[in-house]
Amino acid sequence: MSEAQLRFEISEYKSRLDKARNAMEKVGLDLLVVTDPANMGWLTGYDGCSYYVPQCVVVSKDQDPLWFGRRMDANGCRRTAYISEDRIKWYGDEYVQSDTLHAMSVLGQIVADEGHGSAIIGVEKDSSCLSAASFEALYASLPNAKFKNADRLINWQRLVKSPREIEYMRGAGKIVEAMYERVTDVLRPGVKQSDVIAELSYVGTRGVDGYWGDYPACVPNLGAGADASAPHLTWTDRPIRANESIFFELAGVHKRYHCPLSRTYYLGQPTSQILDAEKAVLEGMEAGLEKALAGNCCEDISKAYTAALARGGFEKTSRSGYPIGMGYPPAWGENSASFRSGDKTELRPGMTFHFMSGLWYGDWGIEITESILITEGKVEFLSKVPRKLFVIE
Amino acid sequence: MSEAQLRFEISEYKSRLDKARNAMEKVGLDLLVVTDPANMGWLTGYDGCSYYVPQCVVVSKDQDPLWFGRRMDANGCRRTAYISEDRIKWYGDEYVQSDTLHAMSVLGQIVADEGHGSAIIGVEKDSSCLSAASFEALYASLPNAKFKNADRLINWQRLVKSPREIEYMRGAGKIVEAMYERVTDVLRPGVKQSDVIAELSYVGTRGVDGYWGDYPACVPNLGAGADASAPHLTWTDRPIRANESIFFELAGVHKRYHCPLSRTYYLGQPTSQILDAEKAVLEGMEAGLEKALAGNCCEDISKAYTAALARGGFEKTSRSGYPIGMGYPPAWGENSASFRSGDKTELRPGMTFHFMSGLWYGDWGIEITESILITEGKVEFLSKVPRKLFVIE
Repeated sequence: MSEAQLRFEISEYKSRLDKARNAMEKVGLDLLVVTDPANMGWLTGYDGCSYYVPQCVVVSKDQDPLWFGRRMDANGCRRTAYISEDRIKWYGDEYVQSDTLHAMSVLGQIVADEGHGSAIIGVEKDSSCLSAASFEALYASLPNAKFKNADRLINWQRLVKSPREIEYMRGAGKIVEAMYERVTDVLRPGVKQSDVIAELSYVGTRGVDGYWGDYPACVPNLGAGADASAPHLTWTDRPIRANESIFFELAGVHKRYHCPLSRTYYLGQPTSQILDAEKAVLEGMEAGLEKALAGNCCEDISKAYTAALARGGFEKTSRSGYPIGMGYPPAWGENSASFRSGDKTELRPGMTFHFMSGLWYGDWGIEITESILITEGKVEFLSKVPRKLFVIE
Repeated sequence: MSEAQLRFEISEYKSRLDKARNAMEKVGLDLLVVTDPANMGWLTGYDGCSYYVPQCVVVSKDQDPLWFGRRMDANGCRRTAYISEDRIKWYGDEYVQSDTLHAMSVLGQIVADEGHGSAIIGVEKDSSCLSAASFEALYASLPNAKFKNADRLINWQRLVKSPREIEYMRGAGKIVEAMYERVTDVLRPGVKQSDVIAELSYVGTRGVDGYWGDYPACVPNLGAGADASAPHLTWTDRPIRANESIFFELAGVHKRYHCPLSRTYYLGQPTSQILDAEKAVLEGMEAGLEKALAGNCCEDISKAYTAALARGGFEKTSRSGYPIGMGYPPAWGENSASFRSGDKTELRPGMTFHFMSGLWYGDWGIEITESILITEGKVEFLSKVPRKLFVIE
């Protein structure tokens, strides 16, 4: 496709390819089979809801990247990726959900035909798009190849964002601000959860200030009342209730780049339980954000957060953050670093994270989070939504 | 959780469990590890956007189903599934995206502790939620077990829908009707694609007639102009253009049950190319639908469709339909039968399919589809949207 239609300049895709090849060289790979759809998109621009069937991008030391997928999706590659016609390879529909044929054997033959039959091949073994059957079919079709686990190899390359990526994420931040403005406007006792979600989806998809809204890698999660004990539930038509809290975890999205943000609302006079939790979470976040500086590392943020929480009498057993950027359903996390003890990943300017400071207990929970950009100086917030428990009288 | 909150009666879940156990017995399985999120939900009610980390339901011959997942998601199980407390097992966050630990080894230990260390264990090897690494970790942790591929074993049990499931899908059908009414109202040259999607998402999420809108397993796909050559692209803010076609593939969704439907619009005076295609597709669909009768088989529909298409000078190389029902991102297909040559699956009352009659060529395409219910008599349409090319002058 023409450079004008791509979401990044060809030079940016080429520099990503260089990063990928350098990473491959460091771990001794001749070839890398990239199945994670966000990694595929980051490397080539390929964008489509087609990863429910086998597909991948293959990176070698010197050939242009190869796109492999279902025949009907080859046109989607032609229209979204910078891959040239001779590097687009496909399999027929007889391979789709078949008990006897597997598409990854076709890929194996292509790899062998290109002279890589004895190569050292990296595969993303824990990618949701490399099923056990996919790997077995590829493995069986390349008996002389040596396979290495290359989980997260590309994900790690995505950690520091380019100026254009940051622009998209700031746009996504504006979108999530508008979504929360709408939530604040419409959230009242008696309104159906599904109607609230309809409103925020409408705003999120229209977008703001020239940033149109793309679809989130995870649909809005919410928890009302005792459902706030669980972080990954979605909506029903249950009415919003007075004297109850409800949290939302939403993302503004622009051109597949995400800005997630959670906020908790209380309808009525908040209980001391949730006010105490708000205080502890906000103090903990302040402590964590003070550590969100280039040169520090990921665990510095989580340690500061959990220590401050502990002073308030609260505990968090899950990680408290992860990198964000491009994402495809079912999750927008970048799957490399984590804000947790032992993670010594150095914070560098251009890194973006969701500081996921949510707490969930037996029959309640609270989520107040921030998406942040590490800079040369103070941390930047990708969206500006008041960091507090929203009380609707 | 209480039966009142479940989406189906306990007796329906029990009968599904019986079907699963019978299927296991037929293929000689002692244990089945169910990772496909729609299969997990169908078996137990479990519902949540948590399948980006390892999780599963384990079915044995005589014990109650066991839910296994991330610690933070155990409350989601408690609030959506009929699983009792002692059958909820979890792993800690240190297993999430770790280079050294894998959650499926924890499951292996649990399976061994329950006395199934030497069992014949079925796994859904081609499920997107059983990564190669997940299988390897499970395999390594149960050295005395024997593993068998149980792909699609549960999916096949889902094929015939219960009255309650059909009710939900008819509700989803009403929702997709309302979505297309809104598209027809707002689709005009100059309107941004993203604004059209905002409108239809709003309508689809609010729902109609007491059927609230759940999220679709695949976001709206659309193809305008030459992008209609590709079936799985999504929107941008590109304005709708005069003298161009645009197709939509949408689903109405209620309680995770889908009614997909595609329609193509032409803005202005349609070209003879698209009118010829409309004629061929509609005649082909008539021919296919005449075969959509209990006692016939899946390939009868596709053969009738492609034969009629051929008479009009058109060809379809991909399958022309698949079963529908529950679904989670990234796809709503049930992954068992297909409308394609060689598929002898007998059509039975209660089966539901998306007759996916779309055609895609080098620089154009057309999608006019139907979601259908096989009955004792004539085929039932799950939604009633005029089956035609919509022309907007």
